[in-house]
Amino acid sequence: MIRVGIVGATGYSGVELIRLLAGHSDVQVAHLYSSSSEGEALANVFPHLHAHPLPPLAKIDAEQMAADNDVIFLATPAGVSTELSPALLENGTKVIDLSGDFRLKNGEDYRSWYKRQPAEAPWLEKAVYGLSEWHAEEIAKADLIANPGCYPTAALLGLLPLAQSGWVNPKSWIVDAKSGVSGAGRGVSLGVHYSELNESIHAYKVGAHQHTPEIEQELSKQTGLQQLIQFTPHLVPMTRGILVTAYGTLESAVSPSQVQELYESVYADKPYVRVRAQGSHPRTKEVYGSNFCDIALHVDERTGRVIVLAVIDNVVKGAAGQAIQNMNLMFGLKETAGLSLVPLFP
Amino acid sequence: MIRVGIVGATGYSGVELIRLLAGHSDVQVAHLYSSSSEGEALANVFPHLHAHPLPPLAKIDAEQMAADNDVIFLATPAGVSTELSPALLENGTKVIDLSGDFRLKNGEDYRSWYKRQPAEAPWLEKAVYGLSEWHAEEIAKADLIANPGCYPTAALLGLLPLAQSGWVNPKSWIVDAKSGVSGAGRGVSLGVHYSELNESIHAYKVGAHQHTPEIEQELSKQTGLQQLIQFTPHLVPMTRGILVTAYGTLESAVSPSQVQELYESVYADKPYVRVRAQGSHPRTKEVYGSNFCDIALHVDERTGRVIVLAVIDNVVKGAAGQAIQNMNLMFGLKETAGLSLVPLFP
Amino acid sequence: MIRVGIVGATGYSGVELIRLLAGHSDVQVAHLYSSSSEGEALANVFPHLHAHPLPPLAKIDAEQMAADNDVIFLATPAGVSTELSPALLENGTKVIDLSGDFRLKNGEDYRSWYKRQPAEAPWLEKAVYGLSEWHAEEIAKADLIANPGCYPTAALLGLLPLAQSGWVNPKSWIVDAKSGVSGAGRGVSLGVHYSELNESIHAYKVGAHQHTPEIEQELSKQTGLQQLIQFTPHLVPMTRGILVTAYGTLESAVSPSQVQELYESVYADKPYVRVRAQGSHPRTKEVYGSNFCDIALHVDERTGRVIVLAVIDNVVKGAAGQAIQNMNLMFGLKETAGLSLVPLFP
Amino acid sequence: MIRVGIVGATGYSGVELIRLLAGHSDVQVAHLYSSSSEGEALANVFPHLHAHPLPPLAKIDAEQMAADNDVIFLATPAGVSTELSPALLENGTKVIDLSGDFRLKNGEDYRSWYKRQPAEAPWLEKAVYGLSEWHAEEIAKADLIANPGCYPTAALLGLLPLAQSGWVNPKSWIVDAKSGVSGAGRGVSLGVHYSELNESIHAYKVGAHQHTPEIEQELSKQTGLQQLIQFTPHLVPMTRGILVTAYGTLESAVSPSQVQELYESVYADKPYVRVRAQGSHPRTKEVYGSNFCDIALHVDERTGRVIVLAVIDNVVKGAAGQAIQNMNLMFGLKETAGLSLVPLFP
Repeated sequence: MIRVGIVGATGYSGVELIRLLAGHSDVQVAHLYSSSSEGEALANVFPHLHAHPLPPLAKIDAEQMAADNDVIFLATPAGVSTELSPALLENGTKVIDLSGDFRLKNGEDYRSWYKRQPAEAPWLEKAVYGLSEWHAEEIAKADLIANPGCYPTAALLGLLPLAQSGWVNPKSWIVDAKSGVSGAGRGVSLGVHYSELNESIHAYKVGAHQHTPEIEQELSKQTGLQQLIQFTPHLVPMTRGILVTAYGTLESAVSPSQVQELYESVYADKPYVRVRAQGSHPRTKEVYGSNFCDIALHVDERTGRVIVLAVIDNVVKGAAGQAIQNMNLMFGLKETAGLSLVPLFP
Repeated sequence: MIRVGIVGATGYSGVELIRLLAGHSDVQVAHLYSSSSEGEALANVFPHLHAHPLPPLAKIDAEQMAADNDVIFLATPAGVSTELSPALLENGTKVIDLSGDFRLKNGEDYRSWYKRQPAEAPWLEKAVYGLSEWHAEEIAKADLIANPGCYPTAALLGLLPLAQSGWVNPKSWIVDAKSGVSGAGRGVSLGVHYSELNESIHAYKVGAHQHTPEIEQELSKQTGLQQLIQFTPHLVPMTRGILVTAYGTLESAVSPSQVQELYESVYADKPYVRVRAQGSHPRTKEVYGSNFCDIALHVDERTGRVIVLAVIDNVVKGAAGQAIQNMNLMFGLKETAGLSLVPLFP
Repeated sequence: MIRVGIVGATGYSGVELIRLLAGHSDVQVAHLYSSSSEGEALANVFPHLHAHPLPPLAKIDAEQMAADNDVIFLATPAGVSTELSPALLENGTKVIDLSGDFRLKNGEDYRSWYKRQPAEAPWLEKAVYGLSEWHAEEIAKADLIANPGCYPTAALLGLLPLAQSGWVNPKSWIVDAKSGVSGAGRGVSLGVHYSELNESIHAYKVGAHQHTPEIEQELSKQTGLQQLIQFTPHLVPMTRGILVTAYGTLESAVSPSQVQELYESVYADKPYVRVRAQGSHPRTKEVYGSNFCDIALHVDERTGRVIVLAVIDNVVKGAAGQAIQNMNLMFGLKETAGLSLVPLFP
Repeated sequence: MIRVGIVGATGYSGVELIRLLAGHSDVQVAHLYSSSSEGEALANVFPHLHAHPLPPLAKIDAEQMAADNDVIFLATPAGVSTELSPALLENGTKVIDLSGDFRLKNGEDYRSWYKRQPAEAPWLEKAVYGLSEWHAEEIAKADLIANPGCYPTAALLGLLPLAQSGWVNPKSWIVDAKSGVSGAGRGVSLGVHYSELNESIHAYKVGAHQHTPEIEQELSKQTGLQQLIQFTPHLVPMTRGILVTAYGTLESAVSPSQVQELYESVYADKPYVRVRAQGSHPRTKEVYGSNFCDIALHVDERTGRVIVLAVIDNVVKGAAGQAIQNMNLMFGLKETAGLSLVPLFP
């Protein structure tokens, strides 16, 4: 049994790791860690875990944590992982970081978009970007995974095949994304107040969201071309789910079926990417609670654009689910272990 | 492998059976049946099942169905099961009926509350009421299960220990129940129109809901006393979940801890009933997508009443989950097989 | 023009006073007060008021406030009004208090249910309980109005005629109430976190909510009999609206039409109470944004109970709307001035 | 008093006309018409109108309707107005058509996007496109108003100043729009089923929505340049509200403040367009129930694009409210008569 430790179990990604790992037969949730609630039972924080067997919240001590676990998931706010990961790695445990701390290879990008001190360059180099479908081989050899952001997961799975095709102007990408509120985390603020969000939708951080450089970095790296992304996130009155509606200007005449075939070919053997019928309109509900990313392709011949629709559950494929998928790859387990959940519908 | 057939796979209970059985290692979803869509793939009806391996929808033919399946789940509207079950049973397959057709032992009650022709008396007698925690032994021997209604499941699990205790006036019960909209099924009507339900709550069928005699029958049967229930259902702007708030007038002085201990004792070894801390307030979200029924007890000494709060996911414990729990009992499988799901939170 | 001052304009009741008073032709919103944001424009707090002409937030100074306004609305948390109202009244302005500080005539009840120091007895005696339909004459002569709580407004309008009738056992009342989240106010907490409330319902403060003695006091006072209320509030995933489902045990045989006629008679000339058709099921949406209280009556002859359904918009009839109705009565204006809004549907 | 007739009062736009006209002092809702419910009271269809004085539903007879009303609002499905309007106009009443029948000047566009037979060319020419802020003078003289679609209203108010500026590439426009469910009307279908829409978002009619040519026509007409629009509508789990997120590629270097000043100047004297602070993120809730369109401008210098955010209440400014605004203009009333509603918040 692989011994798993989770830091940040009192947040939404942490508690989703627990839900999913409960169905994973090769893994034991050995330890939970919290900076503030040492000794407490997690069921006191999350009553839905009443009677679920779990270790109590333990204090953070990198050396001990490394000794007690084969892999540590860091489901923590920005900055924590920069501090904690090096000590964990030096003491010989693997780390899967769900925060943004190790995603951007260029520390200055991190400083500029996150307004924080980046991790040191050698650690940034060491980190493998954990987009499971695209980097399985590197992930298998990695000790430190930078688990992708929720928006980038949907955007990259949706755009990478087209970006690689060369059919689309690399400066033309527009990613208009819509997210449920759970993406904002469990912290309290007016920004997550029920009465302010319900029956309302709004954009936020137009032109300024920290997931922008992450999407650009990966698209550019995979294509060898500098790709420019206009990224706009929106907050939708729902708890879970991300829909990305992405637009690219076609530079050559491409038929709808060519685009469809491209995606079906690229994702033919990927269990968690479902290329939906040409011209369909996937709903976030259709992947609810599951690790799927559903993608639909539209070519608008009138305007000369391709429109990509991609949906994920932000807490699963956009966070905890993909983290487990990466753990499976790192430990040579079946990629789908613990993740074979049919979406909850309705 | 137990071969399972599902009639009504195009409805919410049917599709939930598929979700849950996908994680059940002793069972194979062998056949799906539909009165109207013969030959069609279920993923055409439910895109969230895209790429999920399933048999096509087959036509209804009792003799063939009995030959091809070890057990048939009937997730069908009122009346269908009355017609179909006898033929299935006579041809030697087991039947788990999720409709109300076999729940009321007295056919006249059915006629009066459902406004329909009841099944014939011998079949009504043969049917075992499938409240898993209370009738496990009879269920294990049964060929025909009347799977409980969603409201009665929450109400009965919440009230049976108290009713048996004799502490409560049997004519004093008030069951004020609140349900998500999925309980109304997938049929279209103004009654399930998003714009009419959202941002609104209302009661319906005050004094007239067909689950009333079902609750009364079971409470009375278990206690040997005629119990009278005032039952009021409400429609809440959410998809899943039932909360029952039930009130009983205490006939003797009982302390909160006595009530708490009673429930903890009755449900000590029941994996899907979680007696929550005394005086707590369970949320439907805390059992979302799971087979749990969470119960909390309140004694109001000022008024001389006991208040029981019970929450379930209406589609799981209130329908498909309990049906599978009953199947497990009927076939001598582990009671929790296929049902060990942690609630989805948030 | 009556000069109105509002304390607590940065809360939901305060901002609703502004919405409603914008349509009141006899009144000018002369001053807004805030303990924390002196000098700021309210549109900075509430962007929906962009370009709406309003005075800036001024500091709290009772003497100056009394000089500058004919009436002050206190839309403030518990305790503020106890401090502020005496000075305002002594300086000669009228006060309409939307908090609970002056509702309970017995200071010890306040101490026991609110866990706070009550106002002094003479002020409590002076305050008139502002249930507009039942106390119009006293309200017309009052200087200090204790504006009713949101739950008591719906409960009392729904129960008073029956309580007075003598048909119902005065110890039998059960008030099962369901509220939207706006009733919890604008303060931030996990209790109003979108992701925790959405797709969920729960009861809270069972047997312990501070509106219980308010309902009992008014029912008892109007009937001369001690009435006992079992009150259970619930939080529903919606922003606005309260539904009260109330149960009483009939002590004499009363027909549905007798109950219907009683209500139609009592409320015949009350513009904001709409007695709906016998046996109907009003929805909170049917009074959304309006000052109406819709009431429907059910007699369950099988159980010997009467069930009352009453719906209001908690922010209007349950707070700001009724406060304005009371102001109209106090100043001899038309009772409906500023309140003639058709419900927003859908 | 202007006598108003409403056809389609049993739909959401019709009933919103009634809500708004109830507060309009120069107008009397003289007649309601329905093709199916002659003689019925509208309160039977919409209980929230209980006790609201209204004429009964009358049958459709163009000659009589013209005799009895000064203006007729047609809140009807596509095709009805094409049939009915000519007869109404020929009999001398004015018509405000809320459907799409008279919006497209080119009948072939109508045939192609609506898949229906267009109105005859002379009537299409006669119709004035009722975007109140941009065509007030023609509206004032018109007998037949083609009231704009909900999406085009938000898109055009948001884009017209920029389109006219010449700063943006006219082929670069992308309009990513998000709508509440009420826009789909009151008809029942799986497409508006609560359980299917709640907790979910999806795009629909990508590249194929009939509002596309309407936006293009007006942008092109006002600028004299062929403008090309990529339009994508989405269905959001809320009842009311539209948010348009629109993207245009800048052809010249323009500063954020230049764009801001342009909009503030264009809309300086328009009571229902509120240009919000530069770089802000308006929410649909901030215009809920009101006739406002709130607009915010973002210039992304990194990508060379301008992003326009525009929010409306689709039932008010996107339908009934703008129709009344147009009526006010047609009859020489104050433009804001009956429309001075502060948004409902929260």
